[in-house]
Amino acid sequence: MAPSNNNSKGFQLSCPMPKFDFDAINLGHGSGGILSQRLLNSGVFDVLKNDLLNTRHDGAVFDLQGKVAFSTDSYVVSPLFFAGGNIGDLAINGTVNDLAMCGAMARYLSLSFILEEGLPMTQFWEILQTIRQAADHAGVQIVTGDTKVVERGKGDGIFINTSGIGIVHAQAALGWAALQPGDKVILNAPIAAHGIAIMSQRSGLDFETDVVSDTAPVHKAVEALLDAFGSNIHFLRDATRGGLASVTNEIAGDGKVGIELWQKAIPVAEQVAGACEMLGLDPLYVANEGVFVAIVAANMANDACALLQSKGWPQACIAGEVNAAHKGQVLLRSAIGGRRVVNMLPGEQLPRIC
Amino acid sequence: MAPSNNNSKGFQLSCPMPKFDFDAINLGHGSGGILSQRLLNSGVFDVLKNDLLNTRHDGAVFDLQGKVAFSTDSYVVSPLFFAGGNIGDLAINGTVNDLAMCGAMARYLSLSFILEEGLPMTQFWEILQTIRQAADHAGVQIVTGDTKVVERGKGDGIFINTSGIGIVHAQAALGWAALQPGDKVILNAPIAAHGIAIMSQRSGLDFETDVVSDTAPVHKAVEALLDAFGSNIHFLRDATRGGLASVTNEIAGDGKVGIELWQKAIPVAEQVAGACEMLGLDPLYVANEGVFVAIVAANMANDACALLQSKGWPQACIAGEVNAAHKGQVLLRSAIGGRRVVNMLPGEQLPRIC
Repeated sequence: MAPSNNNSKGFQLSCPMPKFDFDAINLGHGSGGILSQRLLNSGVFDVLKNDLLNTRHDGAVFDLQGKVAFSTDSYVVSPLFFAGGNIGDLAINGTVNDLAMCGAMARYLSLSFILEEGLPMTQFWEILQTIRQAADHAGVQIVTGDTKVVERGKGDGIFINTSGIGIVHAQAALGWAALQPGDKVILNAPIAAHGIAIMSQRSGLDFETDVVSDTAPVHKAVEALLDAFGSNIHFLRDATRGGLASVTNEIAGDGKVGIELWQKAIPVAEQVAGACEMLGLDPLYVANEGVFVAIVAANMANDACALLQSKGWPQACIAGEVNAAHKGQVLLRSAIGGRRVVNMLPGEQLPRIC
Repeated sequence: MAPSNNNSKGFQLSCPMPKFDFDAINLGHGSGGILSQRLLNSGVFDVLKNDLLNTRHDGAVFDLQGKVAFSTDSYVVSPLFFAGGNIGDLAINGTVNDLAMCGAMARYLSLSFILEEGLPMTQFWEILQTIRQAADHAGVQIVTGDTKVVERGKGDGIFINTSGIGIVHAQAALGWAALQPGDKVILNAPIAAHGIAIMSQRSGLDFETDVVSDTAPVHKAVEALLDAFGSNIHFLRDATRGGLASVTNEIAGDGKVGIELWQKAIPVAEQVAGACEMLGLDPLYVANEGVFVAIVAANMANDACALLQSKGWPQACIAGEVNAAHKGQVLLRSAIGGRRVVNMLPGEQLPRIC
């Protein structure tokens, strides 16, 4: 993946932390009183500032015209910091991507923190910086927010909710109704990196790897696809929790079509594949944070792949096909030619992956 | 307060809980796989259903035209259930009210859960029902959502984020720039009930009271004010965390005006006042969930109060005045005539009030 898609790598944390008169978050920072104001005024507003946020009202007011998408996600990833990112860019990219899957370009985000008493200010500061940088990278504004604090032992450092509003692309005509047998299944990037990056740093699982999370905004890739192919892009979903297996099952789930995935075609980085083997995991079920599935009209699929490759996703590929033969089911054509049913993730592979 | 404003009282929990094949939330319910689907399909979508939510996409798509407000809040109240409501209606009313303070009528809400492993399904079900009823009562749709699960001891039952989009009233012209010396400070309802209701049920504080939370949506009251008085309504803020004292300090905080509050005029229910005295609390600092401050042009203030009284807020009153004499400060004229400075809540009175 090109560095330009990896907003969490190569960022400079250029803004030094101001001298707070406290080392860690305390309950007073959630009071709504002087301590709350001090937390916000000592740096939070400075880091996140823009014209809309600066009004400091209970909400942001702006004009919208036409078709919009609205999405929400809470982020509870553990650990908070991992190779390739932290909960901050995950929270920005995740909601930007959810909107992109609706064919919408994210524009306005809300940001809500649930902080645990005792969270070190250094960690909070680093996450804030990452949030700002990820928002700038994605071209979105954080326009309204909220901060709550819970007692030590009632949270886990920091949980973040981002909700977002995006402008739906004029040519977007996505949805189950658009799916056609023969459509191709396109992936923009190799799978399973995020889950492996998290696992490698989770206590109790001790292995060394250079795998970094794939967290990245994909809305510009989506915009390029819709600009070029319009209603020939039939469906979009990001392959986050539950991995490629679960998301393709969701797509097939309404029973109108079946999906066949081609194992040989699905890109998995060597180190990721090695880690999956060691851990006994099927990469199809491992979470991603910068991978999406685009279901595209068959005659446009090669061009769509080429476009993604030219836009910074060099491993974009056709990884399967929609069919009418086994409606409601996902099958995997294995590397040696057999086919097996791929079900949705049955239980829990790794809690708190995002 | 008229029953019609108390959406949490008198609701019938009419929808029996379906037979879940689990008694409590487990980590698999946050997996994004089969267990997540089972949780959502076994009742969650049934309770919350509407045309937009039923698309079950990563976000909701709809049309908007003109000026909108966007707001977010995470709710971490403890205990989850209290006299007069639970975290569910708090989460709906709170975001409806934040939008109302921007002069906007809430229309679309997002709903995001952070559940703690082990949360009893009976509790989750009751909260879900309350959410649906509160949304119906307020006339808003829950159009998109998210569910995460954290391990036992890393959360506290349930945290809820709601974000919302509202349509700004065509006559709204709110903001610091509109404030004028002589403007009147109007309250819609008696203060301090929510905080006392929560405190009376908090472990460690053992006292008996019949006080119930004032949680209620206030957007219809705001709409009536803006319909009738337009740009003569100069500023709106809800007096939640930090109470009336903190919110009036926020209004005066930019230093353009001062505010004088009139102790005699501020309504406090007898039981609430008694509880405050017993606990050594100043009701000015106690949180509310259905009280807002409207700063109104002087010559409209009596009519504005009368309108609120006619709309189900019988104790609406003029409780103070904006002035140019002590800019940036809030003073309280006491019942016996003296004046004292009212500062913002200095520390933390009661964590997790909302």
